[in-house]
Amino acid sequence: MKAPLDFYFDFSSPYGYLAAQKIEALAAKHGRGVTWHPMLLGAAFKATGATPLPSIPLKGDYAKRDFLRSARFHDIPFRIPDQFPISTLHACRAFYATADSAQAVRLAKALYKAYFVDNVNIGEADNVLKVAGSLGLKPDLNDQALKDRTRAEVDAAVAKGVFGSPYIVVDGEPFWGMDRFDQLERWMKVPF
Amino acid sequence: MKAPLDFYFDFSSPYGYLAAQKIEALAAKHGRGVTWHPMLLGAAFKATGATPLPSIPLKGDYAKRDFLRSARFHDIPFRIPDQFPISTLHACRAFYATADSAQAVRLAKALYKAYFVDNVNIGEADNVLKVAGSLGLKPDLNDQALKDRTRAEVDAAVAKGVFGSPYIVVDGEPFWGMDRFDQLERWMKVPF
Repeated sequence: MKAPLDFYFDFSSPYGYLAAQKIEALAAKHGRGVTWHPMLLGAAFKATGATPLPSIPLKGDYAKRDFLRSARFHDIPFRIPDQFPISTLHACRAFYATADSAQAVRLAKALYKAYFVDNVNIGEADNVLKVAGSLGLKPDLNDQALKDRTRAEVDAAVAKGVFGSPYIVVDGEPFWGMDRFDQLERWMKVPF
Repeated sequence: MKAPLDFYFDFSSPYGYLAAQKIEALAAKHGRGVTWHPMLLGAAFKATGATPLPSIPLKGDYAKRDFLRSARFHDIPFRIPDQFPISTLHACRAFYATADSAQAVRLAKALYKAYFVDNVNIGEADNVLKVAGSLGLKPDLNDQALKDRTRAEVDAAVAKGVFGSPYIVVDGEPFWGMDRFDQLERWMKVPF
Protein backbone atom coordinates (compact mmCIF):
# COMPACT_ATOMS: atom_id res chain seq x y z
CA MET A 1 0.00 0.00 0.00
CA LYS A 2 1.44 3.34 -0.99
CA ALA A 3 1.53 6.18 1.53
CA PRO A 4 -0.98 9.00 1.04
CA LEU A 5 0.06 12.42 -0.21
CA ASP A 6 0.35 15.03 2.53
CA PHE A 7 -1.55 18.05 1.25
CA TYR A 8 -0.87 21.31 3.12
CA PHE A 9 -2.93 24.39 2.32
CA ASP A 10 -4.38 27.61 3.71
CA PHE A 11 -8.12 28.22 3.31
CA SER A 12 -7.32 31.75 2.07
CA SER A 13 -5.02 30.53 -0.71
CA PRO A 14 -6.43 30.61 -4.27
CA TYR A 15 -3.80 28.16 -5.45
CA GLY A 16 -4.63 25.91 -2.50
CA TYR A 17 -8.28 26.02 -3.54
CA LEU A 18 -7.45 25.16 -7.14
CA ALA A 19 -5.20 22.30 -6.03
CA ALA A 20 -7.94 20.99 -3.74
CA GLN A 21 -10.16 20.45 -6.79
CA LYS A 22 -7.60 18.23 -8.49
CA ILE A 23 -5.43 16.49 -5.94
CA GLU A 24 -7.63 13.52 -5.05
CA ALA A 25 -8.04 12.43 -8.67
CA LEU A 26 -4.31 12.84 -9.27
CA ALA A 27 -3.44 10.80 -6.19
CA ALA A 28 -6.03 8.10 -6.93
CA LYS A 29 -4.66 7.70 -10.46
CA HIS A 30 -1.43 6.57 -8.83
CA GLY A 31 -2.99 4.42 -6.14
CA ARG A 32 -2.71 6.90 -3.32
CA GLY A 33 -4.98 8.72 -0.92
CA VAL A 34 -4.62 12.26 0.36
CA THR A 35 -4.17 13.47 3.93
CA TRP A 36 -5.46 17.03 4.22
CA HIS A 37 -3.55 19.47 6.42
CA PRO A 38 -5.01 22.97 6.60
CA MET A 39 -2.46 25.39 8.04
CA LEU A 40 -2.00 29.12 8.46
CA LEU A 41 0.24 30.85 5.96
CA GLY A 42 0.70 33.67 8.45
CA ALA A 43 2.69 31.31 10.67
CA ALA A 44 4.86 30.24 7.75
CA PHE A 45 5.33 33.84 6.64
CA LYS A 46 6.75 34.65 10.07
CA ALA A 47 9.47 32.10 9.35
CA THR A 48 10.19 33.21 5.78
CA GLY A 49 9.56 36.95 6.11
CA ALA A 50 7.03 36.76 3.27
CA THR A 51 3.99 39.00 2.93
CA PRO A 52 0.63 38.14 1.38
CA LEU A 53 0.85 38.23 -2.42
CA PRO A 54 -1.84 40.85 -3.06
CA SER A 55 0.03 43.47 -1.03
CA ILE A 56 3.30 43.18 -2.96
CA PRO A 57 4.02 45.89 -5.57
CA LEU A 58 4.00 44.56 -9.17
CA LYS A 59 3.69 40.94 -8.02
CA GLY A 60 0.33 41.56 -6.36
CA ASP A 61 -1.30 42.78 -9.57
CA TYR A 62 0.17 39.89 -11.48
CA ALA A 63 -1.01 37.44 -8.82
CA LYS A 64 -4.64 38.54 -9.09
CA ARG A 65 -4.51 38.15 -12.85
CA ASP A 66 -2.84 34.77 -12.47
CA PHE A 67 -5.41 33.50 -9.94
CA LEU A 68 -8.22 34.20 -12.40
CA ARG A 69 -6.37 32.93 -15.46
CA SER A 70 -5.24 29.76 -13.68
CA ALA A 71 -8.83 29.02 -12.66
CA ARG A 72 -9.99 29.46 -16.27
CA PHE A 73 -7.07 27.34 -17.49
CA HIS A 74 -8.07 24.50 -15.18
CA ASP A 75 -11.79 25.11 -15.78
CA ILE A 76 -12.55 25.63 -12.10
CA PRO A 77 -15.21 28.09 -10.83
CA PHE A 78 -13.45 30.89 -8.96
CA ARG A 79 -13.74 34.50 -7.93
CA ILE A 80 -11.54 36.76 -5.85
CA PRO A 81 -13.57 37.23 -2.65
CA ASP A 82 -14.45 40.75 -1.54
CA GLN A 83 -12.51 40.13 1.68
CA PHE A 84 -9.13 38.83 0.59
CA PRO A 85 -6.85 37.66 2.03
CA ILE A 86 -8.24 36.75 5.44
CA SER A 87 -7.15 34.92 8.57
CA THR A 88 -8.42 31.37 8.38
CA LEU A 89 -7.90 30.38 12.00
CA HIS A 90 -11.59 29.57 12.59
CA ALA A 91 -11.80 27.53 9.39
CA CYS A 92 -8.69 25.64 10.39
CA ARG A 93 -10.10 24.90 13.84
CA ALA A 94 -13.39 23.70 12.38
CA PHE A 95 -11.48 21.23 10.23
CA TYR A 96 -9.46 19.84 13.14
CA ALA A 97 -12.60 19.64 15.27
CA THR A 98 -14.02 17.11 12.83
CA ALA A 99 -12.93 13.68 13.94
CA ASP A 100 -14.19 11.77 10.92
CA SER A 101 -11.63 12.39 8.22
CA ALA A 102 -14.04 11.99 5.30
CA GLN A 103 -16.34 14.55 6.92
CA ALA A 104 -13.38 16.86 7.55
CA VAL A 105 -12.47 16.72 3.86
CA ARG A 106 -16.05 17.47 2.89
CA LEU A 107 -15.93 20.43 5.26
CA ALA A 108 -12.66 21.66 3.74
CA LYS A 109 -14.18 21.56 0.27
CA ALA A 110 -17.34 23.30 1.48
CA LEU A 111 -15.31 26.05 3.16
CA TYR A 112 -13.24 26.58 0.01
CA LYS A 113 -16.38 26.71 -2.13
CA ALA A 114 -18.06 29.15 0.26
CA TYR A 115 -15.07 31.47 0.07
CA PHE A 116 -13.89 31.27 -3.54
CA VAL A 117 -17.19 30.62 -5.29
CA ASP A 118 -19.93 32.05 -3.07
CA ASN A 119 -17.95 35.00 -1.68
CA VAL A 120 -18.70 34.08 1.95
CA ASN A 121 -16.14 35.55 4.35
CA ILE A 122 -14.92 32.41 6.11
CA GLY A 123 -12.61 34.56 8.20
CA GLU A 124 -15.64 35.04 10.45
CA ALA A 125 -16.48 32.30 12.95
CA ASP A 126 -20.22 32.63 12.33
CA ASN A 127 -19.81 31.90 8.66
CA VAL A 128 -17.55 28.93 9.37
CA LEU A 129 -20.23 27.56 11.70
CA LYS A 130 -22.89 28.01 9.02
CA VAL A 131 -20.87 26.06 6.49
CA ALA A 132 -20.14 23.36 9.08
CA GLY A 133 -23.83 23.29 10.02
CA SER A 134 -24.82 22.62 6.42
CA LEU A 135 -22.90 19.34 6.80
CA GLY A 136 -24.45 18.60 10.18
CA LEU A 137 -21.32 19.59 12.08
CA LYS A 138 -21.26 21.73 15.21
CA PRO A 139 -17.64 22.38 16.14
CA ASP A 140 -16.95 24.28 19.36
CA LEU A 141 -14.42 26.77 18.01
CA ASN A 142 -13.63 28.10 21.47
CA ASP A 143 -12.62 24.76 22.94
CA GLN A 144 -9.13 25.08 24.39
CA ALA A 145 -8.06 21.58 23.42
CA LEU A 146 -9.11 22.34 19.84
CA LYS A 147 -7.16 25.60 19.87
CA ASP A 148 -4.09 23.75 21.12
CA ARG A 149 -4.50 20.99 18.54
CA THR A 150 -4.82 23.51 15.72
CA ARG A 151 -1.74 25.39 16.81
CA ALA A 152 0.20 22.13 17.08
CA GLU A 153 -0.83 21.15 13.53
CA VAL A 154 0.23 24.52 12.15
CA ASP A 155 3.53 24.46 14.03
CA ALA A 156 4.18 20.92 12.82
CA ALA A 157 3.63 22.02 9.22
CA VAL A 158 6.09 24.89 9.51
CA ALA A 159 8.57 22.60 11.30
CA LYS A 160 8.35 20.28 8.29
CA GLY A 161 9.30 23.16 6.01
CA VAL A 162 5.87 24.12 4.68
CA PHE A 163 6.19 27.76 3.61
CA GLY A 164 3.46 28.09 0.97
CA SER A 165 0.11 26.79 -0.21
CA PRO A 166 -0.46 24.31 -1.69
CA TYR A 167 2.51 22.24 -0.50
CA ILE A 168 2.45 18.51 -1.12
CA VAL A 169 4.79 15.88 0.27
CA VAL A 170 5.03 12.41 -1.21
CA ASP A 171 7.38 9.86 0.33
CA GLY A 172 9.41 12.73 1.80
CA GLU A 173 9.68 14.73 -1.44
CA PRO A 174 8.13 18.24 -1.27
CA PHE A 175 6.29 20.01 -4.10
CA TRP A 176 5.22 23.63 -3.75
CA GLY A 177 2.43 24.90 -5.95
CA MET A 178 -0.19 23.42 -8.22
CA ASP A 179 2.25 24.19 -11.01
CA ARG A 180 4.39 21.33 -9.72
CA PHE A 181 1.63 18.79 -10.28
CA ASP A 182 3.43 17.73 -13.46
CA GLN A 183 6.56 16.91 -11.47
CA LEU A 184 4.52 15.40 -8.65
CA GLU A 185 2.79 13.11 -11.09
CA ARG A 186 6.02 11.90 -12.65
CA TRP A 187 7.49 11.42 -9.16
CA MET A 188 4.57 9.16 -8.22
CA LYS A 189 5.35 7.03 -11.27
CA VAL A 190 9.13 6.97 -10.81
CA PRO A 191 11.20 9.29 -8.58
CA PHE A 192 13.68 11.18 -10.77
CA MET B 1 2.82 38.30 -38.83
CA LYS B 2 2.50 37.57 -35.12
CA ALA B 3 4.45 39.67 -32.63
CA PRO B 4 7.43 38.01 -30.95
CA LEU B 5 7.35 36.94 -27.31
CA ASP B 6 9.12 39.34 -24.97
CA PHE B 7 11.37 37.17 -22.82
CA TYR B 8 12.72 38.86 -19.67
CA PHE B 9 15.33 37.07 -17.56
CA ASP B 10 18.27 37.53 -15.22
CA PHE B 11 21.51 35.71 -16.05
CA SER B 12 21.69 34.56 -12.41
CA SER B 13 18.23 32.94 -12.50
CA PRO B 14 18.10 29.13 -12.72
CA TYR B 15 14.50 29.24 -13.91
CA GLY B 16 15.49 31.86 -16.49
CA TYR B 17 18.22 29.52 -17.70
CA LEU B 18 15.82 26.59 -17.95
CA ALA B 19 13.28 28.71 -19.81
CA ALA B 20 15.98 29.91 -22.21
CA GLN B 21 16.50 26.32 -23.36
CA LYS B 22 12.86 25.90 -24.32
CA ILE B 23 11.36 29.23 -25.28
CA GLU B 24 12.45 29.48 -28.90
CA ALA B 25 11.01 26.10 -29.84
CA LEU B 26 7.77 26.90 -28.02
CA ALA B 27 7.43 30.26 -29.77
CA ALA B 28 8.35 28.84 -33.19
CA LYS B 29 5.70 26.16 -32.82
CA HIS B 30 3.16 28.96 -32.74
CA GLY B 31 4.69 31.07 -35.51
CA ARG B 32 6.45 33.55 -33.26
CA GLY B 33 9.96 34.74 -32.61
CA VAL B 34 11.48 35.74 -29.27
CA THR B 35 12.90 39.09 -28.21
CA TRP B 36 15.43 38.54 -25.43
CA HIS B 37 15.56 41.08 -22.61
CA PRO B 38 18.17 40.38 -19.94
CA MET B 39 17.46 42.44 -16.83
CA LEU B 40 18.62 42.67 -13.24
CA LEU B 41 16.42 41.05 -10.62
CA GLY B 42 18.04 43.27 -8.00
CA ALA B 43 16.31 46.27 -9.57
CA ALA B 44 12.96 44.49 -9.56
CA PHE B 45 13.48 43.33 -5.98
CA LYS B 46 13.89 46.97 -4.92
CA ALA B 47 10.35 47.52 -6.21
CA THR B 48 8.82 44.41 -4.66
CA GLY B 49 10.88 44.13 -1.48
CA ALA B 50 11.86 40.58 -2.43
CA THR B 51 15.13 38.93 -1.49
CA PRO B 52 17.07 36.32 -3.47
CA LEU B 53 15.48 32.88 -3.08
CA PRO B 54 18.48 31.03 -1.63
CA SER B 55 18.66 33.38 1.35
CA ILE B 56 15.04 32.85 2.46
CA PRO B 57 14.46 30.45 5.40
CA LEU B 58 12.61 27.25 4.38
CA LYS B 59 11.95 28.53 0.86
CA GLY B 60 15.66 28.74 0.07
CA ASP B 61 16.28 25.07 0.80
CA TYR B 62 13.24 24.11 -1.21
CA ALA B 63 14.31 26.33 -4.09
CA LYS B 64 17.70 24.64 -4.42
CA ARG B 65 16.03 21.25 -4.50
CA ASP B 66 13.49 22.51 -7.01
CA PHE B 67 16.16 24.01 -9.32
CA LEU B 68 17.86 20.63 -9.57
CA ARG B 69 14.66 18.62 -9.85
CA SER B 70 13.19 20.96 -12.46
CA ALA B 71 16.35 20.64 -14.56
CA ARG B 72 16.11 16.84 -14.38
CA PHE B 73 12.39 16.98 -15.15
CA HIS B 74 13.07 18.99 -18.30
CA ASP B 75 16.21 17.00 -19.12
CA ILE B 76 18.45 20.07 -19.14
CA PRO B 77 22.10 20.03 -17.96
CA PHE B 78 22.37 22.16 -14.82
CA ARG B 79 24.36 22.68 -11.66
CA ILE B 80 24.12 25.21 -8.88
CA PRO B 81 27.23 27.36 -9.42
CA ASP B 82 29.72 27.76 -6.57
CA GLN B 83 29.05 31.49 -6.62
CA PHE B 84 25.29 31.88 -6.47
CA PRO B 85 23.47 34.16 -6.78
CA ILE B 86 25.61 36.88 -8.38
CA SER B 87 25.19 40.34 -9.84
CA THR B 88 24.88 39.99 -13.59
CA LEU B 89 25.44 43.62 -14.55
CA HIS B 90 28.48 42.86 -16.72
CA ALA B 91 26.69 40.01 -18.48
CA CYS B 92 23.72 42.27 -19.12
CA ARG B 93 25.95 44.99 -20.55
CA ALA B 94 27.73 42.52 -22.81
CA PHE B 95 24.37 41.47 -24.23
CA TYR B 96 23.25 45.04 -24.93
CA ALA B 97 26.66 45.86 -26.44
CA THR B 98 25.99 43.29 -29.15
CA ALA B 99 24.20 45.06 -31.98
CA ASP B 100 23.41 41.95 -34.04
CA SER B 101 20.44 40.36 -32.31
CA ALA B 102 21.22 36.80 -33.41
CA GLN B 103 24.74 37.19 -32.02
CA ALA B 104 23.33 38.69 -28.82
CA VAL B 105 21.11 35.63 -28.34
CA ARG B 106 24.07 33.33 -28.95
CA LEU B 107 25.97 35.30 -26.33
CA ALA B 108 23.08 35.00 -23.86
CA LYS B 109 23.02 31.23 -24.31
CA ALA B 110 26.81 31.01 -23.97
CA LEU B 111 26.74 33.07 -20.77
CA TYR B 112 23.99 30.90 -19.30
CA LYS B 113 25.90 27.73 -20.22
CA ALA B 114 29.13 29.09 -18.76
CA TYR B 115 27.38 29.83 -15.49
CA PHE B 116 24.94 26.97 -14.99
CA VAL B 117 26.83 24.17 -16.72
CA ASP B 118 30.54 25.06 -16.57
CA ASN B 119 30.47 26.83 -13.19
CA VAL B 120 32.15 29.99 -14.56
CA ASN B 121 31.44 33.03 -12.38
CA ILE B 122 29.91 35.39 -14.94
CA GLY B 123 29.56 37.99 -12.21
CA GLU B 124 33.16 38.89 -13.07
CA ALA B 125 33.78 41.13 -16.08
CA ASP B 126 36.84 39.14 -17.16
CA ASN B 127 34.80 35.96 -17.42
CA VAL B 128 32.06 37.71 -19.37
CA LEU B 129 34.70 39.00 -21.80
CA LYS B 130 36.12 35.48 -22.22
CA VAL B 131 32.72 34.07 -23.09
CA ALA B 132 32.09 36.98 -25.48
CA GLY B 133 35.54 36.48 -27.00
CA SER B 134 34.74 32.85 -27.76
CA LEU B 135 32.06 34.21 -30.10
CA GLY B 136 34.38 36.82 -31.61
CA LEU B 137 32.82 39.64 -29.60
CA LYS B 138 34.76 42.37 -27.80
CA PRO B 139 32.27 44.53 -25.88
CA ASP B 140 33.62 47.62 -24.07
CA LEU B 141 31.90 47.07 -20.74
CA ASN B 142 33.03 50.46 -19.44
CA ASP B 143 31.48 52.49 -22.23
CA GLN B 144 29.19 55.09 -20.71
CA ALA B 145 26.60 54.90 -23.47
CA LEU B 146 26.41 51.13 -22.92
CA LYS B 147 26.00 51.60 -19.18
CA ASP B 148 23.18 54.07 -19.82
CA ARG B 149 21.52 51.78 -22.35
CA THR B 150 21.66 48.82 -19.95
CA ARG B 151 20.18 50.83 -17.11
CA ALA B 152 17.41 52.08 -19.41
CA GLU B 153 16.58 48.50 -20.48
CA VAL B 154 16.41 47.33 -16.88
CA ASP B 155 14.31 50.32 -15.81
CA ALA B 156 11.97 49.75 -18.75
CA ALA B 157 11.48 46.12 -17.72
CA VAL B 158 10.58 47.05 -14.14
CA ALA B 159 8.31 49.82 -15.44
CA LYS B 160 6.49 47.16 -17.48
CA GLY B 161 5.90 45.18 -14.30
CA VAL B 162 8.64 42.58 -14.62
CA PHE B 163 9.35 41.37 -11.08
CA GLY B 164 10.77 37.91 -11.64
CA SER B 165 12.67 35.66 -14.03
CA PRO B 166 11.66 34.31 -16.45
CA TYR B 167 8.84 36.69 -17.31
CA ILE B 168 7.26 36.43 -20.73
CA VAL B 169 4.82 38.83 -22.37
CA VAL B 170 2.76 37.86 -25.40
CA ASP B 171 0.39 40.42 -26.94
CA GLY B 172 0.30 42.27 -23.62
CA GLU B 173 -0.39 39.19 -21.47
CA PRO B 174 2.29 38.44 -18.82
CA PHE B 175 3.43 34.99 -17.71
CA TRP B 176 5.81 34.58 -14.79
CA GLY B 177 7.84 31.41 -14.54
CA MET B 178 8.63 28.48 -16.74
CA ASP B 179 5.79 26.73 -14.92
CA ARG B 180 3.40 28.97 -16.85
CA PHE B 181 4.59 27.64 -20.21
CA ASP B 182 1.44 25.48 -20.31
CA GLN B 183 -0.76 28.55 -20.00
CA LEU B 184 1.48 30.54 -22.35
CA GLU B 185 1.16 27.84 -24.97
CA ARG B 186 -2.61 27.73 -24.76
CA TRP B 187 -2.72 31.54 -24.86
CA MET B 188 -0.73 31.53 -28.11
CA LYS B 189 -3.34 29.21 -29.62
CA VAL B 190 -6.39 31.05 -28.25
CA PRO B 191 -6.42 33.65 -25.44
CA PHE B 192 -8.65 32.42 -22.64
